[in-house]
Amino acid sequence: MHIDLNVDTGESFGLWPMGHDEILFTVVTSANLACGFHAGDPLTIQKSVQLAKKHGVAIGAHPGFRDLVGFGRRDLALSPQEAYADTLYQLGALQAFVTCERAVLHHIKPHGALYLRMLREPNLARAVAQAVVDFSHDLPLVVLGGPGGRVMQEGAAEVGARTVLEAFPDRAYLPDGRLAPRGMEGSLVRDPALAAERAVAMVTQGRVEALGGGEAEVRAETLCIHGDNPEAPEIARAVRTALEEANVNIRPF
Amino acid sequence: MHIDLNVDTGESFGLWPMGHDEILFTVVTSANLACGFHAGDPLTIQKSVQLAKKHGVAIGAHPGFRDLVGFGRRDLALSPQEAYADTLYQLGALQAFVTCERAVLHHIKPHGALYLRMLREPNLARAVAQAVVDFSHDLPLVVLGGPGGRVMQEGAAEVGARTVLEAFPDRAYLPDGRLAPRGMEGSLVRDPALAAERAVAMVTQGRVEALGGGEAEVRAETLCIHGDNPEAPEIARAVRTALEEANVNIRPF
Amino acid sequence: MHIDLNVDTGESFGLWPMGHDEILFTVVTSANLACGFHAGDPLTIQKSVQLAKKHGVAIGAHPGFRDLVGFGRRDLALSPQEAYADTLYQLGALQAFVTCERAVLHHIKPHGALYLRMLREPNLARAVAQAVVDFSHDLPLVVLGGPGGRVMQEGAAEVGARTVLEAFPDRAYLPDGRLAPRGMEGSLVRDPALAAERAVAMVTQGRVEALGGGEAEVRAETLCIHGDNPEAPEIARAVRTALEEANVNIRPF
Amino acid sequence: MHIDLNVDTGESFGLWPMGHDEILFTVVTSANLACGFHAGDPLTIQKSVQLAKKHGVAIGAHPGFRDLVGFGRRDLALSPQEAYADTLYQLGALQAFVTCERAVLHHIKPHGALYLRMLREPNLARAVAQAVVDFSHDLPLVVLGGPGGRVMQEGAAEVGARTVLEAFPDRAYLPDGRLAPRGMEGSLVRDPALAAERAVAMVTQGRVEALGGGEAEVRAETLCIHGDNPEAPEIARAVRTALEEANVNIRPF
Repeated sequence: MHIDLNVDTGESFGLWPMGHDEILFTVVTSANLACGFHAGDPLTIQKSVQLAKKHGVAIGAHPGFRDLVGFGRRDLALSPQEAYADTLYQLGALQAFVTCERAVLHHIKPHGALYLRMLREPNLARAVAQAVVDFSHDLPLVVLGGPGGRVMQEGAAEVGARTVLEAFPDRAYLPDGRLAPRGMEGSLVRDPALAAERAVAMVTQGRVEALGGGEAEVRAETLCIHGDNPEAPEIARAVRTALEEANVNIRPF
Repeated sequence: MHIDLNVDTGESFGLWPMGHDEILFTVVTSANLACGFHAGDPLTIQKSVQLAKKHGVAIGAHPGFRDLVGFGRRDLALSPQEAYADTLYQLGALQAFVTCERAVLHHIKPHGALYLRMLREPNLARAVAQAVVDFSHDLPLVVLGGPGGRVMQEGAAEVGARTVLEAFPDRAYLPDGRLAPRGMEGSLVRDPALAAERAVAMVTQGRVEALGGGEAEVRAETLCIHGDNPEAPEIARAVRTALEEANVNIRPF
Repeated sequence: MHIDLNVDTGESFGLWPMGHDEILFTVVTSANLACGFHAGDPLTIQKSVQLAKKHGVAIGAHPGFRDLVGFGRRDLALSPQEAYADTLYQLGALQAFVTCERAVLHHIKPHGALYLRMLREPNLARAVAQAVVDFSHDLPLVVLGGPGGRVMQEGAAEVGARTVLEAFPDRAYLPDGRLAPRGMEGSLVRDPALAAERAVAMVTQGRVEALGGGEAEVRAETLCIHGDNPEAPEIARAVRTALEEANVNIRPF
Repeated sequence: MHIDLNVDTGESFGLWPMGHDEILFTVVTSANLACGFHAGDPLTIQKSVQLAKKHGVAIGAHPGFRDLVGFGRRDLALSPQEAYADTLYQLGALQAFVTCERAVLHHIKPHGALYLRMLREPNLARAVAQAVVDFSHDLPLVVLGGPGGRVMQEGAAEVGARTVLEAFPDRAYLPDGRLAPRGMEGSLVRDPALAAERAVAMVTQGRVEALGGGEAEVRAETLCIHGDNPEAPEIARAVRTALEEANVNIRPF
């Protein structure tokens, strides 16, 4: 058995730092780099690509809503046409740095409220996936695994996008496999030991305890560790250690 | 003899239209497309690439300062590192649309105050040219021709960038070959007949009447028509007609 | 009988012009000025205040979502706390220009998707109204009149905000009194004669033909003419003339 | 003898934190709050006003260039008309929060590259000072004291603005009284003991050791502690303690 560990990175903006990229890059196997719409700026992107390459971490694009002040976490009713164009723009911008640093673009994972909207809106899921396919036919698109990610998975399938299934050990699930909304009590898992235990259950059993009781079905080829949590480095280390102890190999998808 | 006619396009933003792209595309041979920093947005870029392709106009990148409210026309003291990264970002973003529309990126021309700053600051000229070379080694960089463009030309030469020399029939020159600043009385040529006459002198004689008397030396492989002038379509047509009557062939460089 | 005619203005941004402010100011009695979040910038605000004052048009604030590229028309899930602070910020910014030009701030009317969200979300309606009350206790808040505006009206009432009821002769209504969404077929009325007829029905009978048949109940102390329609000047003149012919006095509320 | 200690605050943006406001507010007597153009956003402004009020710190406006990614520290060639309007906009926006929190706007101090440009460009110094006078006739404008601040002081005097003289114990001076540019070796003083010693010299002797030898003349009614330095809290405490030991009373101007 094997799994990839991904983390959102490159989320500084101008003089404002964010995250623990340097530490996390010693633990995870792939990184989603902000592309300038919800976070990141050209200099930050350049440094983040260099840092990821230095640590041998696979580089992914992390496009989001054009909403810096809201960090791309506020739902925005953009049209599928806008989502297509915004995704393409951010993919191209990141690709330029990746190419110039002689690295390789490994995957794409939508950010925040864009990701969540793709879980609900088939047209949007399809539009973003179409941008990925048009940009680079075989570039893997990270989507939520399990029944909670059905709309996103189908949107990708309809346009022939290659997908990679993801689960979140540091986020709570509803019994039907959907992510518990960020505002909901208990939606964030902050205890490294608990996150680690959930990660092992996700990978080895394909299920995890749901919020409110019962179990949610999950499918994962990659596990996401949220990099903006103060506890992110501890969670990442605990998750990695627990997986290795369960004989799960940690490597990029 | 032959010459290219270029125009700045794709300068709408969101719901705000600008320019006369559709008309100008029937007259010019190459277009510089705004990349989202001083003007343009992902949907506008997509439409502009499609429109340029439909008209067979060569597509260039037109990166500028990150200053929408000032339209990239206000001098900004960014560092060479920032200029390098900002250029790369905008080049990549545009390239994604060009590739997806099965078109070809033909050249790059810096916009507004960025262009003007490259005329004065060797480090900046070199940084932008380096971004072009790193992005795509043989992509032509449009620079001011003649003695007024010396700093910009040398910056490009130092990093091995391929250059194309430009002149402005609708802008006044100082006797030393520099462009007259926009704020200066008489700096903009708005009479189509006069612009046409200047275009012919530039191409066939390598010189043009300078502001305040005397003649400025110019060298041009492409002539720029400013697309944001209300008179732009008339100027473009007059320039093209006059050049053709002077037996100058109009074609992309 | 009397009524106010209001129009959204000051919606240019930087070098990008929008609207027909100078013409419309000769027809309407009050103006809602964009405050820089969805449109407008400090120089545009200054000029718009001067222009409104010159024409004797009552000046209102028109705060919107922080979304220039989407012109504040894309629904954004901001929190009530953000809505409160964003409204206060925009009110203060406009007030500074109004004061310096020795004019008076006459009312506030939320813009676009912010207005529409206040029609659905009680907490948001209350938060915006609270910002108005805290900023200036008796400043009138324009809200949708009739049953379609119930949530917005109640939010205002709960915090003690003074309200002014509005109707839209150039927008279609659903039979239950709600505005037909912009995307819906027939949602925009572009025929000046039809808009004029609807305006008279709204003011004199308190009802208007609904989309899909039947009549919608409306209540109006002010009628809005959308300034961004190409037909805006014709619609405004037709509406004004028809109302005057129906012996309705046109004056600010 | 007495002096005010001021610090730049409210410089977070969205989810990105910056500075040590809560700690510094226990040491300084006045605070300059970012107004949203170079840093700050409506929610941050609201919280910063509340925090300053809670600590009894005098609240000032800190308008800057519209350049978030550059934090308002990159020189921008805006026109005096733009500077006037941008200042007014930011002043009004902050005033709304100050009023709603039942606090008082105590002063205004331009930020970063705007401040530095006012040291060189008479028209700009006058335009910003005019905005202050028009907004609130007696609102004090903080200007650089001593010969280095002559242009800024004169611009304020020409339009009748009330001024307060400032010095920077954590910044190096050139022998002619101008601030050493940020990029220059030794331009930032990071040793709390040295900063404290310089503060006492500035206040009690009206002079300070200049970079490269000799002494610079300074005049100060307020001393600025840069809040974005990692050492800011230590510097502020050292400066305050040293001044108190030199029998200088610390209080708002």
